[in-house]
Amino acid sequence: MEPAWTDWRDTDSRRCSVARTADVIGDGWTVLVLRDVFNGIRRFDELAAHLGVARNVLTRRLAALVEAGVLTREPYREPGARVRHEYLLTEAGRDLLPVILAMVAWGDRYRAGTEGPPVVVQHAGCGAPVHVEIRCADDHRLQPGADRLRSHPGPGAVRP
Amino acid sequence: MEPAWTDWRDTDSRRCSVARTADVIGDGWTVLVLRDVFNGIRRFDELAAHLGVARNVLTRRLAALVEAGVLTREPYREPGARVRHEYLLTEAGRDLLPVILAMVAWGDRYRAGTEGPPVVVQHAGCGAPVHVEIRCADDHRLQPGADRLRSHPGPGAVRP
Repeated sequence: MEPAWTDWRDTDSRRCSVARTADVIGDGWTVLVLRDVFNGIRRFDELAAHLGVARNVLTRRLAALVEAGVLTREPYREPGARVRHEYLLTEAGRDLLPVILAMVAWGDRYRAGTEGPPVVVQHAGCGAPVHVEIRCADDHRLQPGADRLRSHPGPGAVRP
Repeated sequence: MEPAWTDWRDTDSRRCSVARTADVIGDGWTVLVLRDVFNGIRRFDELAAHLGVARNVLTRRLAALVEAGVLTREPYREPGARVRHEYLLTEAGRDLLPVILAMVAWGDRYRAGTEGPPVVVQHAGCGAPVHVEIRCADDHRLQPGADRLRSHPGPGAVRP
């Protein structure tokens, strides 16, 4: 069988896992909402306060993340108060962690200035700081810039 | 010295490497522009054609990426034609590769459907497919969901 394409120019720009992920998280507020939920802020009022975002904007972002299967909306009730909701990561949501941590690493390196990183993320089990690595299935650790990558059509590719 | 904060709620939401990275790439088109440049599409006309994006939108996104130090704009000249420009990744740009590859992995897993991944990214050196891993400085490989992380104030944190 002939490959669907051999030149990146012939790929369908929207038929791409980057595009599909960007459709879910490719929005500044959405990424910050996820970051806060990863850090244990789950309640609407606490998210709104921490993010400093307009409530209608937050409502829309949370609804989109629930719709995308990244968060679930669960009821909770404080004594004497009405039922409210908190937001929990689904498995798909938890699997966005490498995207968030890769963003942390870049911002630490290129935007933290002389002050240094504002936040250090550690492995709770051992206390060592975490990072993201690129590895191949033969377990080579790849360095951006030093190691070359090649994009090939996968099973979900279409002919140009 | 007291830590700047001990509860994530007390962190400054904008003083954060995720927020700072999202300010650079937190836009659907920008991520796709970078993806194409990583895949060797460097010229304005080729980017516009592959992305199917309006030229004024592409002009703004490229200017922002140059301004952010992620791309450089270099002149080139085909025989008999006027000078045009192509866009090359800087070191800071190449270091966004883990973000892009983490997005590829998520989209492959959660948005590729029964057809499977549209694109396979391989290590050019050995041909094996690449992936992104979370590791700590003690070289434990962490799994989202199974391993817990902890965020601590870094040197660039401020008191709430």
